[in-house]
Amino acid sequence: MSSRTVIRGGLVITAAEEMYADVLIEDGRIAALAASHTPAAEAFTAERTVDATGKYVIPGGVDGHTHMEMPFGGTYASDTFTTGTRAAAWGGTTTIVDFAIQSVGRSLREGLDAWHAKAEGNCAIDYAFHMIVSDVNDETLKEMDLLVEEGVTSFKQFMAYPGVFYSDDGQLLRAMQRAADNGGLIMMHAENGIAIDVLVEQALARGETDPRYHGEVRKALLEAEATHRAIRLAQVAGAPLYIVHVSAREAVAELTRARDEGVNVFGETCPQYLFLSTDNLAEPDFEGAKYVCSTPLRPRDHQEALWRGLRSDDLQVVSTDHCPFCFTGQKELGRGDFSKIPNGMPGVENRMDLLHQAVVDGHLSRRRWIEIACAAPARMFGLYPKKGTIAPGADADVVIYDPHAEQVMSAATHHMNVDYSAYEGRRVTGRVETVLSRGEFVITEREYTGRAGHGVYTPRSTCQYLS
Amino acid sequence: MSSRTVIRGGLVITAAEEMYADVLIEDGRIAALAASHTPAAEAFTAERTVDATGKYVIPGGVDGHTHMEMPFGGTYASDTFTTGTRAAAWGGTTTIVDFAIQSVGRSLREGLDAWHAKAEGNCAIDYAFHMIVSDVNDETLKEMDLLVEEGVTSFKQFMAYPGVFYSDDGQLLRAMQRAADNGGLIMMHAENGIAIDVLVEQALARGETDPRYHGEVRKALLEAEATHRAIRLAQVAGAPLYIVHVSAREAVAELTRARDEGVNVFGETCPQYLFLSTDNLAEPDFEGAKYVCSTPLRPRDHQEALWRGLRSDDLQVVSTDHCPFCFTGQKELGRGDFSKIPNGMPGVENRMDLLHQAVVDGHLSRRRWIEIACAAPARMFGLYPKKGTIAPGADADVVIYDPHAEQVMSAATHHMNVDYSAYEGRRVTGRVETVLSRGEFVITEREYTGRAGHGVYTPRSTCQYLS
Amino acid sequence: MSSRTVIRGGLVITAAEEMYADVLIEDGRIAALAASHTPAAEAFTAERTVDATGKYVIPGGVDGHTHMEMPFGGTYASDTFTTGTRAAAWGGTTTIVDFAIQSVGRSLREGLDAWHAKAEGNCAIDYAFHMIVSDVNDETLKEMDLLVEEGVTSFKQFMAYPGVFYSDDGQLLRAMQRAADNGGLIMMHAENGIAIDVLVEQALARGETDPRYHGEVRKALLEAEATHRAIRLAQVAGAPLYIVHVSAREAVAELTRARDEGVNVFGETCPQYLFLSTDNLAEPDFEGAKYVCSTPLRPRDHQEALWRGLRSDDLQVVSTDHCPFCFTGQKELGRGDFSKIPNGMPGVENRMDLLHQAVVDGHLSRRRWIEIACAAPARMFGLYPKKGTIAPGADADVVIYDPHAEQVMSAATHHMNVDYSAYEGRRVTGRVETVLSRGEFVITEREYTGRAGHGVYTPRSTCQYLS
Amino acid sequence: MSSRTVIRGGLVITAAEEMYADVLIEDGRIAALAASHTPAAEAFTAERTVDATGKYVIPGGVDGHTHMEMPFGGTYASDTFTTGTRAAAWGGTTTIVDFAIQSVGRSLREGLDAWHAKAEGNCAIDYAFHMIVSDVNDETLKEMDLLVEEGVTSFKQFMAYPGVFYSDDGQLLRAMQRAADNGGLIMMHAENGIAIDVLVEQALARGETDPRYHGEVRKALLEAEATHRAIRLAQVAGAPLYIVHVSAREAVAELTRARDEGVNVFGETCPQYLFLSTDNLAEPDFEGAKYVCSTPLRPRDHQEALWRGLRSDDLQVVSTDHCPFCFTGQKELGRGDFSKIPNGMPGVENRMDLLHQAVVDGHLSRRRWIEIACAAPARMFGLYPKKGTIAPGADADVVIYDPHAEQVMSAATHHMNVDYSAYEGRRVTGRVETVLSRGEFVITEREYTGRAGHGVYTPRSTCQYLS
Repeated sequence: MSSRTVIRGGLVITAAEEMYADVLIEDGRIAALAASHTPAAEAFTAERTVDATGKYVIPGGVDGHTHMEMPFGGTYASDTFTTGTRAAAWGGTTTIVDFAIQSVGRSLREGLDAWHAKAEGNCAIDYAFHMIVSDVNDETLKEMDLLVEEGVTSFKQFMAYPGVFYSDDGQLLRAMQRAADNGGLIMMHAENGIAIDVLVEQALARGETDPRYHGEVRKALLEAEATHRAIRLAQVAGAPLYIVHVSAREAVAELTRARDEGVNVFGETCPQYLFLSTDNLAEPDFEGAKYVCSTPLRPRDHQEALWRGLRSDDLQVVSTDHCPFCFTGQKELGRGDFSKIPNGMPGVENRMDLLHQAVVDGHLSRRRWIEIACAAPARMFGLYPKKGTIAPGADADVVIYDPHAEQVMSAATHHMNVDYSAYEGRRVTGRVETVLSRGEFVITEREYTGRAGHGVYTPRSTCQYLS
Repeated sequence: MSSRTVIRGGLVITAAEEMYADVLIEDGRIAALAASHTPAAEAFTAERTVDATGKYVIPGGVDGHTHMEMPFGGTYASDTFTTGTRAAAWGGTTTIVDFAIQSVGRSLREGLDAWHAKAEGNCAIDYAFHMIVSDVNDETLKEMDLLVEEGVTSFKQFMAYPGVFYSDDGQLLRAMQRAADNGGLIMMHAENGIAIDVLVEQALARGETDPRYHGEVRKALLEAEATHRAIRLAQVAGAPLYIVHVSAREAVAELTRARDEGVNVFGETCPQYLFLSTDNLAEPDFEGAKYVCSTPLRPRDHQEALWRGLRSDDLQVVSTDHCPFCFTGQKELGRGDFSKIPNGMPGVENRMDLLHQAVVDGHLSRRRWIEIACAAPARMFGLYPKKGTIAPGADADVVIYDPHAEQVMSAATHHMNVDYSAYEGRRVTGRVETVLSRGEFVITEREYTGRAGHGVYTPRSTCQYLS
Repeated sequence: MSSRTVIRGGLVITAAEEMYADVLIEDGRIAALAASHTPAAEAFTAERTVDATGKYVIPGGVDGHTHMEMPFGGTYASDTFTTGTRAAAWGGTTTIVDFAIQSVGRSLREGLDAWHAKAEGNCAIDYAFHMIVSDVNDETLKEMDLLVEEGVTSFKQFMAYPGVFYSDDGQLLRAMQRAADNGGLIMMHAENGIAIDVLVEQALARGETDPRYHGEVRKALLEAEATHRAIRLAQVAGAPLYIVHVSAREAVAELTRARDEGVNVFGETCPQYLFLSTDNLAEPDFEGAKYVCSTPLRPRDHQEALWRGLRSDDLQVVSTDHCPFCFTGQKELGRGDFSKIPNGMPGVENRMDLLHQAVVDGHLSRRRWIEIACAAPARMFGLYPKKGTIAPGADADVVIYDPHAEQVMSAATHHMNVDYSAYEGRRVTGRVETVLSRGEFVITEREYTGRAGHGVYTPRSTCQYLS
Repeated sequence: MSSRTVIRGGLVITAAEEMYADVLIEDGRIAALAASHTPAAEAFTAERTVDATGKYVIPGGVDGHTHMEMPFGGTYASDTFTTGTRAAAWGGTTTIVDFAIQSVGRSLREGLDAWHAKAEGNCAIDYAFHMIVSDVNDETLKEMDLLVEEGVTSFKQFMAYPGVFYSDDGQLLRAMQRAADNGGLIMMHAENGIAIDVLVEQALARGETDPRYHGEVRKALLEAEATHRAIRLAQVAGAPLYIVHVSAREAVAELTRARDEGVNVFGETCPQYLFLSTDNLAEPDFEGAKYVCSTPLRPRDHQEALWRGLRSDDLQVVSTDHCPFCFTGQKELGRGDFSKIPNGMPGVENRMDLLHQAVVDGHLSRRRWIEIACAAPARMFGLYPKKGTIAPGADADVVIYDPHAEQVMSAATHHMNVDYSAYEGRRVTGRVETVLSRGEFVITEREYTGRAGHGVYTPRSTCQYLS
């Protein structure tokens, strides 16, 4: 028997439309939209009616870049799938795409199975996986085909972290060639890690151990260089390419140049690059460690290029790269040696709100907010139209968003399992009120009503951004 | 009392979505969409049901650039509002934005009134007006404010045609400054007409009178130059800018460069630049005259840059610049002097089909087809969301499109009032079956069921592409 | 009978070489160079020997852009050919190319004759003429051919100053076409004067009358626009092009872009753009008027692009645009209306020293100093190898320059006939000691030993920079 | 006692000047130049007088890139220092800079000593050395300082040839940092060898073994990529950079872009890239092997970008990369596997003539010919003003060149020790008549009058192109 909910009177915002419409949900999917106050809308009947008058009704966020429980340097990202997906829901995100990891010498399958085991039964919202490819060889390449068929359609490679995740240019090229054949999307961590490691070693030898040196050695030019290199390799392979966590103005310029030439290359940035800067990395008393992630934060004047890129579609997606480590006990591993600070920041709960603040600040239109946070990642990673929009047939992943409420971000109030907030004390306008995942109420008027295990694994088709 | 129609079972395509949905129309507007075959859809009741199984259900086309009954060189464009809008409907277009003309020495008001008089009561589909500003002076500038308030929110200026429509750079700048204040959008015919007229005179003096010389003297570099100049003037004025009928690769490059810098500049191209070339201008026996328009057709190898621009949003809109003159009696005025050939080509009926062919040919995705032909022009010219999409609340301007039907374009079968087709004999896949305008059937299974006078003047808000 | 001078022991610097060499002068020309202290050098015999040990021996400067006695706005530039060329010699310049002016409605011939009459018998150093073309018509175009034949091989046009010097784009194009045929070089004042005049009028209407508004209304984007436009017109005409007094970073970018495409376009800047800025225009008590010239001074951060352009040959020449007006009685004409301030600055005496200071400051190499100040202008304007170098056969225009002497620039000590120095109080390293013009001593150990009338008219061949 | 020669009546051409001058040589150096037919010239007395009437008198060529007796893939380049330098002299080149090679695991010193041993006493003309750095480590870096002090001031690294000469990006960066400190110049073989080796393996696996596949797998984009990467690494290190043997249009674009940004990066191309193409690589019967070198020959339409780069100084130097292998017995090693063909082509004898032909063909001016072939390499590699010009004090390395003589290039007549000519049958205008090296006649009216051992090792100062 059908379970029905109707959300009435809100302003429905998608990547393309803004409309006052009532949204009818049947059996976990968007069944119908009708213009509010019309006979068609009044004909909607449902067990449950939500009044969204004065609110936005938006698609649940799709966070295309998270690292729950990720092992790094002997420790683990502090959010499990349980805590992390719950926090995501609090922040208006209803789908994450996390990264399963192949260990060097092991198979993709083994890594993927391990991540399935971590996630299954624990998630408050739906999830999918990218695959980190650490070890390109003939077997790996064959496995890539299989993974595409089972809905893991994107493969991340690293030009940084030699000895861990690093692939050399031949390995990149071979994986790209395979992706060109099987429809997979190569995602790239684009930093010249070989060169950076030389600079790290030299900095430490000079006694430069503070977190701010993390930002100095991982140079913008070396992000731009790797970005350019990845693009040219992808052109040789005939494969599309997605650059993760773009932070440097010079890297945006490489993306822009390639896109002007008609190359199928895409770019993601993250809220931390839009709202934070090397000023944070330079905070005293080792507080800078909270902001250590790679690519690193950049000087504030890089932000304008990122906003420009987001507006004119040279950057398509804003993800979080959520990878939290507690300051106490985890970030502190790097006292006296910035290179030992676990790389990563919390953020899965903050993304939708920070980007709404960008709307308030005039950086983005409302529709572009939804596009970069919901629709574009869904399309990029083959989840569309199931995820990322409010349209008949889509999953009923819906957020009722109060655009006028004010909030102050703080570790004291957030739901991520981490002892600090990267945005501590920041006041923003806009707040998630209610969140539905496939029609179920996960957050109900700012109360958690979800459950671990509601969220299910969601296989993906191949990238739809090219079509 | 409410009149209701439901369109069932088609693939609804908008700029953002593709969904199998039933579309409920009430009182001329889209009332609701429901996923086909769901209880919600089955609950739709209507007097009239259209079966769209196997068809596309798309928004009616918005042609942002037509010239019905336009006076030019002592003659008039051969389509009246009556014949032209009927042909538009046959071609799946349900809204046109035509150009009212200010004569030098007269007021904007006088020109606008004249165009209202031509159109009122005669149109098969809805229409709106841009205003051609031929005479920038203090009075004109004040009138611009008034026109914005009454829904004429865009103003075309010419860098070509000295002595007729031409504005000098000071006049351009002053109008742009005014637009920056009142929210109007400046549309620019970007060709350096002063320089071109020197080349025209020299060519004629050399005895180069054939239509193909029209293409040679109106040089791509002089289109690019004017494009760049208009952009810089708009930057100085702080105004957005829309370049009409971009045809040259070098002009696309100027748009791309400016957009990479974050400038609010937009570009339109037309089907003739995408599908025809200087090869047509060189057709023997004065047949080239059929293809004389300005900007001129370019060598075939310019087309790739236009497609690239359309794909990556450096060009946003495809309009027709529909301005037909019969070969016999009109185009023939230029025998022996290409500069006397009336400038313009027919096309209002062909646009949606040619762009669908571009989908078939792999140049564009289906959604991008709808975006450049419906949604983007509606948004650009302040008609959104009333026009350009299928969403609750929008006008029920809907086309049922058969993507598999084949047709051969020909003057023998087209409905435009002109004695030749620019695409004579061209076979394309896809055809309009049925067209609704505000819920009324204008074309019903390839029969004309509309009437002159159904179409109404539609005031426009300001450009929404910036928001 | 031969008159011989030998200059011994200095460091001879040309655009290409640095060598310790003795220079033998016979009959006003460089007869020979020999490595100092070799038998070959010792074999040189001469009536007069100059010891240049510890000094530079450099070619006399070639100032390709001066306006002696130029009429402007009802007054005249305050240096006559007599005073101006004497001051030039004091500053190490031994050739000027001044601008003869065609008045609208008059012939080139008439203008040229008038300038010959002003100069003849009055100059301390050699001189040549460019021709300002104010009135392009069939007669003018024919006269251009004749002038090329008699050694006036460059023609300046203005995109600014409507009603005075302004040519429209058709006139520009026609003159460029003629130059493409007769080998002439078009020199362009590249500012969009039509647009600027609108901004001037608006500024004055707002009560913005101070000299600093001169810098605000003549916008960098409008210099860049005109630069781009001139380049595209020159491409259409197939003619080389020389942009005078480039001051804006954005204009340098246009030159760079065109040169990257292989276009024969050249750029000149002036010391005022390299050493002064809008800070000077903003000096209180109307002192800013001293710095009013067009193109205007730019914000300080434009200077880096100019230096970069000079280093990498996107700018080829540094001239002075020497056009002095006294503060008292002349500049003052513009009190209360910046647009009435006579445009122009003194500088013919300062150029070689300021550019040597740039060597001291590390902006330029010594050879590049000589290239941009002597060799390149000589080559650009068809005076090479007679002028601009020290090589056998060249005119013996030689400067003995003390690179270690310090001086303070000041109106109290300079020799230009103007009541202020644009560089008042500026301390620079390097000073002219002795100047020879065709072997005659014009300045002898900082004493003026020249005479009016020594300098002769020097016809020029066509531009040699293309060869 | 002084030995004196005078060359009378020729047109002396240097990078900067063209002058009819008599050149006096004393003790192996240029002692003096005097304008021909002046008393100063007539005063020259000498034991030996050469009449150069109707001829060019030019500096001896400086070939900055040769590989005499180079070991490669189990064989050796077929020219020894004896045969190769003699051939160079026949071709008008009087200085070569050859590459000493560090083997992996060995010291720079050992490699340099070995090359000294090969050259000493055997050369007909002067020679110097670059150092190939194959193994960057702490010891190597220290040795770099020492080598700079003894006149080996440039260090070549390879981004290709993994396992042989290849350096990874960290090694590149470290060497560049050292060069930034000690004034050395890093020379880069810029091809992404890691990626290329994947493509080579795949091509061979597909049975693509013909020489033409050499050109297909070594893709232009991978040359451009490496060029860009090297530039960015050099920017990080703060070091200048010289890219050897640029062949791809896309690589020229990277150089141009960097130079537009003011980066100190330089580019060399070679005659084979200017005159030959992939058409040659595709010659049947394995003849394509004659043209196998790396970077590879490119399609003919790349040549235009190279000429443009040479004209506008985005490329500064033309060297030969002379590295000859006989077709019989050497090139044949790669029958059935293009990757086993020894990489390299003969050319040291042809460079000056081919570039003169480029003057005849209108690609270059005469002065630019001398600049790219003589002056610029001398300046780039710290040999100026001893080499590369004709000026008082310079070594008397002088060529008397007949610009009107015609010749046909052929293995039958050339003097290189290799069994084929890459330019077999090519007719060119211009020919070397007489060659002096430090005043000694090496070629006298097309007779060899030199001797092995005349040429001496010539230590170099650091790069003078930056000054």
